[in-house]
Amino acid sequence: MSENYQEMWASLGLNLEAHRGLLSVLSDAYQSIYLSQKNRPAGMGYFDFVVSEVHGLRIVELLKDKAAGKLIVGTFCVYVPEELILALDGVSIGLCAGADVGTEEAEKFIPRNTCALIKGFMGFKLAGLCPYVESADLIIGETTCDGKKKAYEIFDEITKKVYVMELPNKKSDEGRALWTNEIRRLAQKLIEVTGREITLDKLREAARVVNAKRRALQRLSDARASDPAPISGLDALLINQISFYDDPVRFTSKLNELCDELDERVAHGTGIAPKGAVRVLVSGSPMAIPNWKLHSIIESSGGIVVGEEACVGERNFRDLLDAFSTVDEALQKMADRSMGINCACFTPNDERLADIHNMSSKLHAQGVIHYALQFCTPYLVEAYRAKNSVEAAGLPYLRIETDYSLEDAGQLKTRVEAFIEMIRDVKRS
Amino acid sequence: MSENYQEMWASLGLNLEAHRGLLSVLSDAYQSIYLSQKNRPAGMGYFDFVVSEVHGLRIVELLKDKAAGKLIVGTFCVYVPEELILALDGVSIGLCAGADVGTEEAEKFIPRNTCALIKGFMGFKLAGLCPYVESADLIIGETTCDGKKKAYEIFDEITKKVYVMELPNKKSDEGRALWTNEIRRLAQKLIEVTGREITLDKLREAARVVNAKRRALQRLSDARASDPAPISGLDALLINQISFYDDPVRFTSKLNELCDELDERVAHGTGIAPKGAVRVLVSGSPMAIPNWKLHSIIESSGGIVVGEEACVGERNFRDLLDAFSTVDEALQKMADRSMGINCACFTPNDERLADIHNMSSKLHAQGVIHYALQFCTPYLVEAYRAKNSVEAAGLPYLRIETDYSLEDAGQLKTRVEAFIEMIRDVKRS
Repeated sequence: MSENYQEMWASLGLNLEAHRGLLSVLSDAYQSIYLSQKNRPAGMGYFDFVVSEVHGLRIVELLKDKAAGKLIVGTFCVYVPEELILALDGVSIGLCAGADVGTEEAEKFIPRNTCALIKGFMGFKLAGLCPYVESADLIIGETTCDGKKKAYEIFDEITKKVYVMELPNKKSDEGRALWTNEIRRLAQKLIEVTGREITLDKLREAARVVNAKRRALQRLSDARASDPAPISGLDALLINQISFYDDPVRFTSKLNELCDELDERVAHGTGIAPKGAVRVLVSGSPMAIPNWKLHSIIESSGGIVVGEEACVGERNFRDLLDAFSTVDEALQKMADRSMGINCACFTPNDERLADIHNMSSKLHAQGVIHYALQFCTPYLVEAYRAKNSVEAAGLPYLRIETDYSLEDAGQLKTRVEAFIEMIRDVKRS
Repeated sequence: MSENYQEMWASLGLNLEAHRGLLSVLSDAYQSIYLSQKNRPAGMGYFDFVVSEVHGLRIVELLKDKAAGKLIVGTFCVYVPEELILALDGVSIGLCAGADVGTEEAEKFIPRNTCALIKGFMGFKLAGLCPYVESADLIIGETTCDGKKKAYEIFDEITKKVYVMELPNKKSDEGRALWTNEIRRLAQKLIEVTGREITLDKLREAARVVNAKRRALQRLSDARASDPAPISGLDALLINQISFYDDPVRFTSKLNELCDELDERVAHGTGIAPKGAVRVLVSGSPMAIPNWKLHSIIESSGGIVVGEEACVGERNFRDLLDAFSTVDEALQKMADRSMGINCACFTPNDERLADIHNMSSKLHAQGVIHYALQFCTPYLVEAYRAKNSVEAAGLPYLRIETDYSLEDAGQLKTRVEAFIEMIRDVKRS
């Protein structure tokens, strides 16, 4: 795609040479990880196309939206309510954070011992490689972890676009009240920035669009409960990653088409992996696109990932936004909905342990792999309680701590293979 | 001291052999770092004695207090209001966290990439080496960083004593309201646990005691503004560390005696270091006893530490608790007071940058050393803005990231010596 978009990328201030290199690396990785999969659903064609145009056609669309007066809002977290952005004629997009890019530049601003995701978003910006951050009018951060909370201060110095929402540390009544107020404050901010009004009709339409997207993602999740699984974990992860970037209405329609195909596959017993393949639930830190490392290792080791108890995954779509009859009630319901997302940033966070159990049971997982980015303290510490809880339920548990580099890929593959073999042995005995 | 207390330590469940080893190492370290200093104020004799009895006589006192029905409350953070504990006939004590102890045990529960202070409090408990945690009836944690917030969940599983206060992430009106409510909730908790009432008289007496302690620490800080400095940074740091352990009334009286002596020294121009020694402000993470590493390196390199912009330091005593006329007003004032402490857990935290400038100016610091424990994300990220702010004011800045081990001591000494030499050159030119 690259030749058609040079002018656009130049106008966004990207580093054209480095960007060409990035696209080439990503294209190769996609070829070897995704396109090499056998027997994929035909409906994945759309998502392959989206990936191939993720820095191209999608940016053309965003710039058209921007020219038409729409606000382009970059986000990093599922606590930021997409409905509110849509209701003000905004476009909500995730920002680049899933690859080791601009690391040396990023480390001039933030410590070496920062998680790959935070280094990623700093690095993508500093290296001039993220057309999303350049297109965005506003970037909404949140206080979910020390690293993001403090890095946003610097990211704002660099971009002049950052607005931070305060997420509380506890799911107490007071914490919920504080968060509800933050949603109201965001509504005011968006009204100010856009000069538009929030109306009940607009909110209802936005809720319809986002709930429909969530329902389609729920269908995808449900389909993965079958044995054989009709779709790979890699493909399902990709769709979840794309859900943060694509136009929500088109995405939903294409995903529902794919889910129709998956339903047929399930009816015919067609799987992406053989019936009886070892079924793994992945739980932990978010996997931003193109972070496909762990899924790729698991599925090339004979396992199949049947679910992601993660923000790029189940936490993003499990709960719908409830109906409302006033604008303020809508804001309250948004706050209520997001406080049901069990991020490790909360203390205590026992509900996440229950989520892992419920997903394992619903999706017939035979083992849980706890995934945390290196230096992602909330998930790394919570791993201890997750382990005890998963093992007490009689399920095998493996703890993976890694970053985006491929240096440890061989070692991880050995550990994952041993884990899958161990589950196979348990099944046989 | 060790022979007299064997029975007490055994009754607290300490690991006697390991504890004997720890005391021996600490005694040697104290000898070489503290008692080798020349020309110390005579008043340091009391604090030397306190250190020598920190696991002995002070624990005897605590156990007597406990037997007399007083609540022993362990804390880790200056946001926990000592006045409230005292007003309910409680005793407030800091818990052991300043040395590499029980690290292997701690790493079974929390990640390797956790700061030394958190590993320290977990390790001290797990290795059976902290008589304070064993004496405590209640341990009050707070949500100041991801590591502590999440580790307290596990620490509570181990000790069954942990109560967590929610500190907000922002100094907004809503954040302040949440924190005020947390102070009220703590008051209720202490009333429940002790079965006592909070009265205005008790609160006033507690405020008088703690404010007097803060005033004495302010006197100590003021004395350090003189050139030559009448007391070493090492000794001043030690006194600040002891302020979290000692009986507050006795501590205040002894510190005021020392300050009288310091006033005389200042009047006579008597210094611990020569007039004109390079004056350094240290700013950053807390230094729990016996973490004397950085001060020791600075002062053995010809510098003198004139202040600590840190929680074990200025943040602990700069502001007094204002007068109040009702119990609830007292709780509100406690909340207001502590929200003036500019911990890097807040975003934004520009007030800390102002504190660094004000302290540098008041104490005639000629350079700022930013100190952060490895993996202490809030301070490590904030270091970037601190650097820009300090350098913009024309002051030299050095960023130190370290842990409790002495492995990097040589390398740190080389960097600190170069920093001090550079300041000397600037002064000469």
